Amino acid sequence: MINKRLEQLTKNNSAIRAMFEEGNRLAEKFGRENVYDYSLGNPCVDSPEMVKDSIIDILSEEKSLNIHGYMPNSGYHFVRETIARNLNKNSKIAYGPNNIIMVVGAAGGLNCILQTLINPGDEIIVVAPFFVEYTNYIENWGGKTVIAQSEDDTFVLSTENIKEKINANTKAIIVNNPNNPTGVVYPEENINDLSQMLLEKEKEYGHPIYIISDEPYRELVYDGRDVPFIPNFYPDTIIVYSWSKSLSLPGERIGYLAIFPEAKDSTLIFNAASISNRIIGFVNAPSLMQRVVERCIECEPRIKEYDQNRKVLYNELTRIGYKCTYPQGAFYLWVKTPCDEEVFVEKAKELHLLLVKGSAFFKKGFVRIAYCVSDDMVVNSIHAFEKLWEAVNH
Amino acid sequence: MINKRLEQLTKNNSAIRAMFEEGNRLAEKFGRENVYDYSLGNPCVDSPEMVKDSIIDILSEEKSLNIHGYMPNSGYHFVRETIARNLNKNSKIAYGPNNIIMVVGAAGGLNCILQTLINPGDEIIVVAPFFVEYTNYIENWGGKTVIAQSEDDTFVLSTENIKEKINANTKAIIVNNPNNPTGVVYPEENINDLSQMLLEKEKEYGHPIYIISDEPYRELVYDGRDVPFIPNFYPDTIIVYSWSKSLSLPGERIGYLAIFPEAKDSTLIFNAASISNRIIGFVNAPSLMQRVVERCIECEPRIKEYDQNRKVLYNELTRIGYKCTYPQGAFYLWVKTPCDEEVFVEKAKELHLLLVKGSAFFKKGFVRIAYCVSDDMVVNSIHAFEKLWEAVNH
Repeated sequence: MINKRLEQLTKNNSAIRAMFEEGNRLAEKFGRENVYDYSLGNPCVDSPEMVKDSIIDILSEEKSLNIHGYMPNSGYHFVRETIARNLNKNSKIAYGPNNIIMVVGAAGGLNCILQTLINPGDEIIVVAPFFVEYTNYIENWGGKTVIAQSEDDTFVLSTENIKEKINANTKAIIVNNPNNPTGVVYPEENINDLSQMLLEKEKEYGHPIYIISDEPYRELVYDGRDVPFIPNFYPDTIIVYSWSKSLSLPGERIGYLAIFPEAKDSTLIFNAASISNRIIGFVNAPSLMQRVVERCIECEPRIKEYDQNRKVLYNELTRIGYKCTYPQGAFYLWVKTPCDEEVFVEKAKELHLLLVKGSAFFKKGFVRIAYCVSDDMVVNSIHAFEKLWEAVNH
Repeated sequence: MINKRLEQLTKNNSAIRAMFEEGNRLAEKFGRENVYDYSLGNPCVDSPEMVKDSIIDILSEEKSLNIHGYMPNSGYHFVRETIARNLNKNSKIAYGPNNIIMVVGAAGGLNCILQTLINPGDEIIVVAPFFVEYTNYIENWGGKTVIAQSEDDTFVLSTENIKEKINANTKAIIVNNPNNPTGVVYPEENINDLSQMLLEKEKEYGHPIYIISDEPYRELVYDGRDVPFIPNFYPDTIIVYSWSKSLSLPGERIGYLAIFPEAKDSTLIFNAASISNRIIGFVNAPSLMQRVVERCIECEPRIKEYDQNRKVLYNELTRIGYKCTYPQGAFYLWVKTPCDEEVFVEKAKELHLLLVKGSAFFKKGFVRIAYCVSDDMVVNSIHAFEKLWEAVNH
């Protein structure tokens, strides 16, 4: 009697819950410190002190109604102005406040822009492996998910594979850079190739094909690497950003949509997505947190801890014999399983290692290790990875 | 090329924006103090001091990751426990934490529960006059809005009118008590009549017909009036609550869904609505604010200011000759227009009075006065209402 799709999802969800409960069961039996839970992509470093200081300053400087009251559905004008100014460091074309919509995290922003763009029958391309919630978001608004595989081995975008999936119904492609689950950062030439192909396809079909650039890991990059700013290559770009990872604020649900001023129908998309923000029931991004991120706009993310985990895990696992993709961004290590992934994940669990199998990201034969965990846990877990290697290779 | 429904909504939205801009234009020309803007239902009283104090205490007592991190999609267990305990003052059946889902305001909660309940073709009954966003929320999830008129003159629920609209496709009815825009509080006998009829209809059609009880104004009642607790009359009830009005936190987007334990499929609805919360992109209600409302659960709303405005406006307007519904809750006065409502609203605007016409709530021949404004504005506006009366009666 309830919605059939959601009823089905409650059944699928039991599998995730089962894993979560298995983790708790193991922790109770063997002690939390003896369970190596690499399953969740939750920040493990505290928010910068500036977040706390900003909240206290705002509470003392502003009136209650200005802190907690309504504002336009797109968010406070001055906050959007600061974000536009910050984005303009990357771009030759100037964003203004009327290109920015404050949203309830990247998940909220993705739903807004998908509701705004999709008409029934429209297709949205996603690049596998990918964050599996994309399929739910697309389906919410009557869109069809079309999967293009990334390049074998390197996991960068495959312009060829994407090109094959484009047809007259293609409305947009979701690009996630730096990537969850692979940790890859798509380089400039990769973005440029994609852009050239899409520009041709736009001409061929006579309508825009938007890039929805999902960038919650934008600042979480290592070795001083640059993340290409897609609008510089392709004007029909909508950036979805969230402070969940960079300021460790995932529970606060705060992010933005940036609609490139030169994107086709840019103003119409801004107006429609602001209404979408309202009618989906977000109404506006949480008001206090809008003010907080405005004050913290220049705050550097704390990547030192993640970087250390990254190096230890990559070096140790490749030393053992695992084939890993070298992570350039985000906090995920993408590992090829030396046997069937189901068997691998089960054997890992026996050794108290909780890993997520690749098929959860629509790419079999891999596991994702979310290394947003304590450095102690990483060091202590290495012997378990060694035993696991022996167990599956003998 | 963008979503057709949203494109249409951008056109409709221009009318609202035009009114907002007209208000600004008048304010610039004649001074803000000479414009009587009764159009917006935004709280005008500050949040209780306890809100600020709670935020500061939480920041000093809790670790950053506990304040701003992820938690289950349904919200912090301890917060849901406190809310359940608080609800149990009203109910013989005990709510537990697994009947409560923290949501992104009432608008977020309504979208969650509608996505959870609606299958294509399902009908949702709303009672006119009603908050016009209901139609958007229902349409988001493929439902059909069916309008039943409330009783003439009293604007309480008409069991007869609702009964006529029920058929095999009826999935739920949205009840908003205290009511926006009429200010009416539906009394016990009214809720009881509705419940008896719905119980019969459930039997007749062999499936549940849920009451979605939208209660953001639950504590905003005057003269010590009681708001009936619907689950005591009708088990298939889901309460949607928000602290937007009671704690003046509309920008923070914090509320809950309470699924009555004895409602049919109660556990399934809880599980499905938690997933809905996730996949619509809310993910969870803002984390810091969850902790704040938990600490402020016993906080009394500040209704003194609203009550004073209510009395001045009702007494003065009826003295002048207007026919008004005596407001028992919320902060709205519902006034019969002595002439065509379009003419009335236009003439009001000439006198710098900004009112919302009844057709915006699917009920022609009325205006809504949102008296969540300063007491000075109310007193100063009376002469304009006098002139308006003269203008339309001569």
